[in-house]
Amino acid sequence: MTSAGTPSAARRPGAAWNMREKSAGIVIIGNEILSGKVVDTNSAFLARELRQIGVALKRVAVIPDELGVIADVVRDFHARFDVVFTSGGVGPTHDDVTIEGVAMALGRPVVRHPVLEDKLREHLKDRLNEAHLKMTEVPQGAELIDSDRTTFPTVRVEDIYILPGIPEILEQKFLSFKDRLAVDPYYLKTVYARQFESNLAPRLNEVLKRFPELLLGSYPKMGDPEYKVKVTLESKDRAYVEQAFACLLELLPSQWVVKTEG
Amino acid sequence: MTSAGTPSAARRPGAAWNMREKSAGIVIIGNEILSGKVVDTNSAFLARELRQIGVALKRVAVIPDELGVIADVVRDFHARFDVVFTSGGVGPTHDDVTIEGVAMALGRPVVRHPVLEDKLREHLKDRLNEAHLKMTEVPQGAELIDSDRTTFPTVRVEDIYILPGIPEILEQKFLSFKDRLAVDPYYLKTVYARQFESNLAPRLNEVLKRFPELLLGSYPKMGDPEYKVKVTLESKDRAYVEQAFACLLELLPSQWVVKTEG
Repeated sequence: MTSAGTPSAARRPGAAWNMREKSAGIVIIGNEILSGKVVDTNSAFLARELRQIGVALKRVAVIPDELGVIADVVRDFHARFDVVFTSGGVGPTHDDVTIEGVAMALGRPVVRHPVLEDKLREHLKDRLNEAHLKMTEVPQGAELIDSDRTTFPTVRVEDIYILPGIPEILEQKFLSFKDRLAVDPYYLKTVYARQFESNLAPRLNEVLKRFPELLLGSYPKMGDPEYKVKVTLESKDRAYVEQAFACLLELLPSQWVVKTEG
Repeated sequence: MTSAGTPSAARRPGAAWNMREKSAGIVIIGNEILSGKVVDTNSAFLARELRQIGVALKRVAVIPDELGVIADVVRDFHARFDVVFTSGGVGPTHDDVTIEGVAMALGRPVVRHPVLEDKLREHLKDRLNEAHLKMTEVPQGAELIDSDRTTFPTVRVEDIYILPGIPEILEQKFLSFKDRLAVDPYYLKTVYARQFESNLAPRLNEVLKRFPELLLGSYPKMGDPEYKVKVTLESKDRAYVEQAFACLLELLPSQWVVKTEG
């Protein structure tokens, strides 16, 4: 390959050095998902949204409504990633132990938040019961993120955002504060190929040798009349991904390429 | 509550003592899922299927195509659960490192399986390349599970089943060997209630006090004209779940109950 720009790009030790990076982990809490009663859509929603604002989702865990497991996994994710989202386990019933689990992970006590208590008392008056009061509990030191789109604020403590499991509410809440999490975006180029992955593989490996920082994906599609494999090239450095894209197109016989995007 | 049977049931220290139990973990491997390009359907499929054959899914992890992470998570799940399924990362390209990750988790070398190599040589003849040969690699000591429904066998090593990421193939493969994993089934009763979860909570807690081994779930549904909360009661002990179900129906005002199932 002798494409202009490729050799110099290849010599750069880390293409995204000056880019703002942020990593994330998602903890989906719910026996109903593990037992196959409910299909989790929250992690897919958050994955798409986080990618759009340049945040690198590194791991998702789906775990049961068990205090010890929640505390362990949240502690682990909190140590590994810049920001953590939990989903589920924040209702008024016996199995809603997420708040307690997050508090345990951080070594903080659980306290009733006076603002939440006021909100509920105002709304429910003398119908307020113990189950309602459970909904006012937060890990000590938590911030409430208010939004006019939702009635109940989001609870954030350190970089952990505690979200409800009900998709409509989780989505509303996330959209209300996503802007505060945004970093530099990813640039994506896509090549659709009408050739088997095993034949593309040597060319893809060659591109990676020249562009070691490239995020390169190769996704076979079964039974599609148009293409066999979708190849994605990504970086936070727009010039870098464009050079890698040009390099790949030079390496691929033109009759293998169905179309490109991005 | 004075329902016949409840007090004796409540005195039983562990309702499912004599039942055959099996726990499972699922490791979904794929940058495409974490970056929001592809929605994982494999974990939901496996969750439903495992429940049907009485296997208790305890955890799902979605992780990137990174050797060290795969090895760590597979090693952890292998130690915790009776059976582990991996999905994805078994193709011929640079980012397909699941086989190596599982081998590393178990401290086994990666070897080419002669049966897989023969199959490919027969099929591809002189078109066989290095990328194809990568597909014949397995952790040393792996068993091949053949099935007439799929062209390529499933690789199993110890209690780890290594499945492909493509849903159609994963599903075919799982269905071909699921019978060998079956243990005692769960019995499920469902109550649909037209009452807020916070008002149900004290009654649910009372049921749990009397039936501490019950798997009790409570799932609010937004915007459904028919019901507000779906309550599920489960156990591997059919008599136990029936007694708990009767107890709950006695505790709930009859006008709160929309319908029951199971």
